[in-house]
Amino acid sequence: MSAAEVDVPSGQPARTNTPAPGDPSLARLSLNQRTTAEWSLRESIDGALRAGLSSIGVWREPVADVGLETAAAWLRDSGLRVSSVCRGGFFTDNDARVRKQAIDDNRAAIDETAALGAACLVLVPGGLPTGDRDLPAARRRVADALATLAPYAESRGVRLAIEPMNPIFAADRGVVSTLAQALQLAEPHEPGVVGVVVDTFHLWWEPGIEATLAEASDRIASYQICDWITPLPADTLLSRGMMGDGHIDFAPFTRAVAAAGYTGDVEVEIFNADVWAAPGDDTIATMARRYADLVAPYL
Amino acid sequence: MSAAEVDVPSGQPARTNTPAPGDPSLARLSLNQRTTAEWSLRESIDGALRAGLSSIGVWREPVADVGLETAAAWLRDSGLRVSSVCRGGFFTDNDARVRKQAIDDNRAAIDETAALGAACLVLVPGGLPTGDRDLPAARRRVADALATLAPYAESRGVRLAIEPMNPIFAADRGVVSTLAQALQLAEPHEPGVVGVVVDTFHLWWEPGIEATLAEASDRIASYQICDWITPLPADTLLSRGMMGDGHIDFAPFTRAVAAAGYTGDVEVEIFNADVWAAPGDDTIATMARRYADLVAPYL
Repeated sequence: MSAAEVDVPSGQPARTNTPAPGDPSLARLSLNQRTTAEWSLRESIDGALRAGLSSIGVWREPVADVGLETAAAWLRDSGLRVSSVCRGGFFTDNDARVRKQAIDDNRAAIDETAALGAACLVLVPGGLPTGDRDLPAARRRVADALATLAPYAESRGVRLAIEPMNPIFAADRGVVSTLAQALQLAEPHEPGVVGVVVDTFHLWWEPGIEATLAEASDRIASYQICDWITPLPADTLLSRGMMGDGHIDFAPFTRAVAAAGYTGDVEVEIFNADVWAAPGDDTIATMARRYADLVAPYL
Repeated sequence: MSAAEVDVPSGQPARTNTPAPGDPSLARLSLNQRTTAEWSLRESIDGALRAGLSSIGVWREPVADVGLETAAAWLRDSGLRVSSVCRGGFFTDNDARVRKQAIDDNRAAIDETAALGAACLVLVPGGLPTGDRDLPAARRRVADALATLAPYAESRGVRLAIEPMNPIFAADRGVVSTLAQALQLAEPHEPGVVGVVVDTFHLWWEPGIEATLAEASDRIASYQICDWITPLPADTLLSRGMMGDGHIDFAPFTRAVAAAGYTGDVEVEIFNADVWAAPGDDTIATMARRYADLVAPYL
């Protein structure tokens, strides 16, 4: 864990105590499993419960490790809401056979999302195929995949959530680069079937983001938070910071998400080698404290 | 120099010979001094001339090393056009005294740009002040600085060129993140006084970029090129690649710049440790070859 001081941008005093279980400020806080990446699904569920959280975002791989049925039973018995399943997507290959495999895999992910009773399935769009520089074509393939998958998702009662990603990942991970662009891709579909993920790390810099969040309205299927830190760690995939350690002003961003009508859980998703090196309980305590100071007051 | 093969996205055969001095494909190619960062101004001028270029983009520091008057004389005598002076800007500090110093420094940069007869002064907006997370306020300070500087620039016959920067730099270098946003900032001013820099590295991912380039029209004061490479080098400031080594499709981007009416020089600006480690003449030869294959045919 970084030893950085909490520098609360709003000027309010930072709390020194971690919110105890039952603290109302925890009511919508969700642990995305990747924030405690060293933990199994069982450990993540138990850790979330120990900290008094009421929601968790799960990943398919740790779910598969114990089997879908067991995972679903554990989650049901835990009383935790499942705020999202990560992840489907990766629609952009230029080989039709590979895209067909991706569609099949996304259908399986939709089934899993239904079985877990999760609020949405997060879709990471995918990057440019190797040696292929046609970005508009890759973006069109995302639209095509949504058109293919939306009816199936609807039939399973699952909400898809397309994740616009920071342009740092436009080449190799996510060709959808702004919330405005994600909304255009979602537009042909019902908001209850195709929504968007709003992640501060990806969108904090987007010009006009507050107006675009208002426009997003009931398309917002998931609100994920973490910070943009500098200098960027060498591995950009691990460049997300704990809220308060970086440059993002969570107050106005969160106010805009709330004003748009979002009433769901708020997931902390942090890919960061330092965070992962800390004991999971410490990570959850830090994230709960930062969330209570920097995010919850503005929901 | 990277040993990567030229993989020409358009499908045309890559040329194996470097364009010789006099080759018409070199007519608008400009060497930005930072691409041959190990060279002094004198060495850069001589290198550009040896390669048959007709234009150069200069930096203020190497100009200052020899003195403005000497630099201006050398450039005049060389017959090279000066496609840009890098750089002014850094307008975003939240301390009024520091901003005042920045304005003074930009006035000096405007004087230097006039003395060098350069096509424009590139303005790097500046990042968030330390500990300050108010991105909209930082962006407003850029607008304020432009309003302060534009009359002075006009009186000196100098064109300012605001540079929108890849969001990877939004926190620490450039709070103007899209071409669309740069155009909004330029809007209150005459196109001949406040234009924009179009740099492929910064803008290749921008949704709707071709339409926004058309809208930019005679605001385009500079076209700078280099590639977006992955994995991103550990130092993001040095993450620019030689054209053809990365993911950018230069053909449609360049066509859109040309269709917008841009008739100026095309500057190659590459910050990259591998490029800098190569002999300058080799770097220029590679950039000329890649430019002739990937960019010049679409101008």
